[in-house]
Amino acid sequence: MEDSKQNARAHERHKRTQEVFVLRWGHRPQRDVRLTTHVALTARALGASGFTLSDVTDQKIKETMEKVSRNWGGTFLFKMGTSWKHAVDSWKIKGGSVVHLTAYGENIQTSDVLKRIHALKKDVLVVVGSQKVPQDFFSIEVSDFNVSIGNQPHSECAALAIFLDRFFEGEELATVFEEARIRIIPQERGKRTNVED
Amino acid sequence: MEDSKQNARAHERHKRTQEVFVLRWGHRPQRDVRLTTHVALTARALGASGFTLSDVTDQKIKETMEKVSRNWGGTFLFKMGTSWKHAVDSWKIKGGSVVHLTAYGENIQTSDVLKRIHALKKDVLVVVGSQKVPQDFFSIEVSDFNVSIGNQPHSECAALAIFLDRFFEGEELATVFEEARIRIIPQERGKRTNVED
Repeated sequence: MEDSKQNARAHERHKRTQEVFVLRWGHRPQRDVRLTTHVALTARALGASGFTLSDVTDQKIKETMEKVSRNWGGTFLFKMGTSWKHAVDSWKIKGGSVVHLTAYGENIQTSDVLKRIHALKKDVLVVVGSQKVPQDFFSIEVSDFNVSIGNQPHSECAALAIFLDRFFEGEELATVFEEARIRIIPQERGKRTNVED
Repeated sequence: MEDSKQNARAHERHKRTQEVFVLRWGHRPQRDVRLTTHVALTARALGASGFTLSDVTDQKIKETMEKVSRNWGGTFLFKMGTSWKHAVDSWKIKGGSVVHLTAYGENIQTSDVLKRIHALKKDVLVVVGSQKVPQDFFSIEVSDFNVSIGNQPHSECAALAIFLDRFFEGEELATVFEEARIRIIPQERGKRTNVED
């Protein structure tokens, strides 16, 4: 428990230094509802401060995310409908950097790209695509870094998870979410929760 | 490049010591096609040796995985239709251990569960559910370890990704897949591939 508290504090410190926001591009309402919901849940559970569903709106995802935050705590911000261009531009005006996750970018394992992202000490907007992203995304006007989580095709959900786990150095998994109605008590066997009414 | 070769060799070594196979339970054909495909792609890209879609078959996922392996190399085994019980039992008979990923299990960040899994030096079957899993999954008859990737709800795809990344200590992301027709050359901007005809 002491460990977990220390981890939570360390994470708070980290978050204060560099906050992460996730932008999801290319969501197709209906078809992508479950996948995009998984990406948003991953962002929240793995330490991002918020999530923007760019260019479209999807009431179902919004409702899911609000319900999850109500039950499981924390202060996760959910936005939708903003154009990706506007979101990226205003992020940069506020002094943040932009990281585009793509299988074509610098490999997070074999390059020093994560070190360079940390060294900037700027808040980070992580851009994840789904269908083929516009070529612009690779340019310096949009992305300060193009980062690959390995150079094999897999999943934006998996890529985001590993990026966040490495960015926060694992500490995000020990974070205590404030004002949770439900808390899991981790254990070797079975399910145990604390539920507040 | 030397680094990447060393990483690949280290990973080969690791894989020889403890191989990982993934079992996906609770797939609903049609409804879950995309999500389960992402889970299978994640398994392959992040160093697992194979994947079992238990209890059901889904031709579409099989075709996608075969096509990906043809183009992107490696020797990933895809199975489907076996009952989960049978798959787990025969895995155990062959001397492997079973790790069930669940938000209720021992937290991979705050406990020593990963250390204990490594210490066994057994091959690992990672079980990921989707809908509510049978209570049996938590019992010692099925799972040697119940492991949580944080104790917040998120995604089986994200959970699997982080488990594999930590299990292989990141080396899986530097693996060179043999006999690939397409290879990405990672770079700071744009897309670059080597394609063999």
